[in-house]
Amino acid sequence: MPKNAFYAQSGGVTAVINASACGVIETARKHPEQIGKVYAGRNGIIGALTEDLIDTSAESDADIAALKHTPSGGFGSCRFKLKSLEDNKREYERLIEVFKAHDIGYFFYNGGGDSADTCYKVSQLSEKMGFPVQAIHVPKTVDNDLPITDNCPGFGSVAKYIAVSTLEASFDVRSMAATSTKIFVIEVMGRHAGWIAAAGALVEDNGIPVVTLFPEVEFDQEKFLAAVKAKVEEHGFCTIVVSEGCHWPDGKFLAEQGTRDSFGHAQLGGAAPVVANMIKEALGYKFHWAVADYLQRAARHLASESDVAQAYALGEAAVQKAVEGKNSIMPTVVRESSNPYKWSIGEAPLSEVANVEKMMPMDFISEDGFGITDACKEYLYPLIKGEAYPPYTDKGMPDYVTLKHVAVPKKLDTFEL
Amino acid sequence: MPKNAFYAQSGGVTAVINASACGVIETARKHPEQIGKVYAGRNGIIGALTEDLIDTSAESDADIAALKHTPSGGFGSCRFKLKSLEDNKREYERLIEVFKAHDIGYFFYNGGGDSADTCYKVSQLSEKMGFPVQAIHVPKTVDNDLPITDNCPGFGSVAKYIAVSTLEASFDVRSMAATSTKIFVIEVMGRHAGWIAAAGALVEDNGIPVVTLFPEVEFDQEKFLAAVKAKVEEHGFCTIVVSEGCHWPDGKFLAEQGTRDSFGHAQLGGAAPVVANMIKEALGYKFHWAVADYLQRAARHLASESDVAQAYALGEAAVQKAVEGKNSIMPTVVRESSNPYKWSIGEAPLSEVANVEKMMPMDFISEDGFGITDACKEYLYPLIKGEAYPPYTDKGMPDYVTLKHVAVPKKLDTFEL
Repeated sequence: MPKNAFYAQSGGVTAVINASACGVIETARKHPEQIGKVYAGRNGIIGALTEDLIDTSAESDADIAALKHTPSGGFGSCRFKLKSLEDNKREYERLIEVFKAHDIGYFFYNGGGDSADTCYKVSQLSEKMGFPVQAIHVPKTVDNDLPITDNCPGFGSVAKYIAVSTLEASFDVRSMAATSTKIFVIEVMGRHAGWIAAAGALVEDNGIPVVTLFPEVEFDQEKFLAAVKAKVEEHGFCTIVVSEGCHWPDGKFLAEQGTRDSFGHAQLGGAAPVVANMIKEALGYKFHWAVADYLQRAARHLASESDVAQAYALGEAAVQKAVEGKNSIMPTVVRESSNPYKWSIGEAPLSEVANVEKMMPMDFISEDGFGITDACKEYLYPLIKGEAYPPYTDKGMPDYVTLKHVAVPKKLDTFEL
Repeated sequence: MPKNAFYAQSGGVTAVINASACGVIETARKHPEQIGKVYAGRNGIIGALTEDLIDTSAESDADIAALKHTPSGGFGSCRFKLKSLEDNKREYERLIEVFKAHDIGYFFYNGGGDSADTCYKVSQLSEKMGFPVQAIHVPKTVDNDLPITDNCPGFGSVAKYIAVSTLEASFDVRSMAATSTKIFVIEVMGRHAGWIAAAGALVEDNGIPVVTLFPEVEFDQEKFLAAVKAKVEEHGFCTIVVSEGCHWPDGKFLAEQGTRDSFGHAQLGGAAPVVANMIKEALGYKFHWAVADYLQRAARHLASESDVAQAYALGEAAVQKAVEGKNSIMPTVVRESSNPYKWSIGEAPLSEVANVEKMMPMDFISEDGFGITDACKEYLYPLIKGEAYPPYTDKGMPDYVTLKHVAVPKKLDTFEL
């Protein structure tokens, strides 16, 4: 009897994580001699710990195929980081116990840095515990911070959404600037790294005056206001792309401006209104601001074709490599050339992936700290290349799938998280 | 010699106002015997007052065609309302003077309610002043508040963008709700009318628990929190769509919550963070919020096919009707049937359009005030039907056009606004 497989989605979801799920499940279905059923964790790894498994064999081929064009986590995800082996061996042992009970020989974990680490530990521990599980990590993160792989699925689509949206809103402001709004501020995700903000900075190539605020560059109010003023004086308007992670030299985020509501309660705001009001106070320009938040990482309607193809290919490769007997690895995207864009699938040992964070190279940020370099553009454009639209219904809404989620009968005692 | 035409864009721009411009210019080019050149006002009607005219004949056929897929105002727009004839006859007389100097016999004004009024007055006054100008209003407004026409170009595309974005972000929250974010708040445009918010409420048909806050319904905090709590208890999460115009019984906008920054300055925020923080304080749910702002009205990448087709057809009809000798009218969209969706072009006299604001029918809002009725859905779906994607470059960015803007030589003295 072939072993079953376990698949789970981890952390913040993306527009294309389900394309990886689709790649995993469709490819597993092509290898019935080596892989039995694919069980998915309901709400991620928590589903494994609580033995809350979804039987993906109950989903039709058409519904599994539809995952490729459906954003979000089709099986649910969670932000739950397993502690270190020393601090909480109990959780790892429970995972192995659940895998044993359901005859799971393959563990496909779809996530970012933390899940790569968990995946690595499971492969080590399972061997020690005498129930070897092939653990393969499928990369996913809009933060684009996993090492070795050229880029991470999820990022390309956010980048495309932010580049296009920033361009469109900038065209809008340009139309009105002579007598009205002169400043448009868009706040984008990126607590630690400016990858997504860098995508907004691409609109410079479309003739848009843009000032970008990266988490990598300490905020210098005077220099920033001077840059904005210069753009407005030259072009009549200015677009500002601000990372949520943009911060003052003392480390305090711009978003934590200490705003209080009328009752004196601390008010959680965004960085965008802070920046917009700052410009208004100092320079008097009329502004508009937007906070894209989840819209950006969920925007499957504007996914990058490169991104969708790579998300699928990495899920597919994970299963192929598992079938070939590989263990404790992560399939990667290898860039063969930027122009024309060519990529292939490689692999990295999890020992080299776990706990390594890849930052944006400093030579991707322009000298003044407010823009991106040609090297950065050469890196980014291929990742936003191509459009992979979802199908739409007659009514004009995207035809996204919601799965049935048939539960696998439990065999073990309850486990307290 | 045929008379020239003057075209101007008015007020907030949209994803499809340039499609109307395209309809006007392409159709005028087909009638060289009746229409000479089409001059466009640089930055709207201000361009006419200051005699700052753009010669559209200097733009290539390809660039004019590209307007159909380019968001924003291709010739610039402005928020400049001409005062009443009694208060400022000088401005109206200047308009006629400029029209006379440039032999302009047709006035195509592309905007909302204010511009319909201006258009009407120009047609009346020009006759009195012995230089008759055929004034045709081309409807445009994301607010969807012009009378007689079934709907207004610009609205359908915002509606599609908000419906799709709300669905995508709701799928995202649904994936994470078991252990993380349970509330997603999206703020949409609509100072006086809840049309755009109503589009967000459509996601109910996709199984999303959604509570919508309309400007038409006075905000009742207790009832609202109870509605949100009930949704979260039943579904595990809840999406909230809030109009920027949502207000307390005393008329104060939710967005004007009296927040102050650390220096004690009044802070302009959005309604979304106010609503999100209110839920957090009362119910303790983790939240995310987005403010779409200009992204929504500029989102040509997700325009509705119905909307683009109608925007073009109304520009085309404006010129055809002018050539037929019509004056002081606005071409309209007439709905023949909702299912299947059929529409045609009608016309309304400007005397019946000027100064009339069409509100959302109260029977479009559900009894509890937090959702929409079937009648509303039947009205909305046809307007978001179909996808009319722009072309993209090899690099993955939309191929939007920026026009040359060749100025027409001035013939008159300077005019102070």
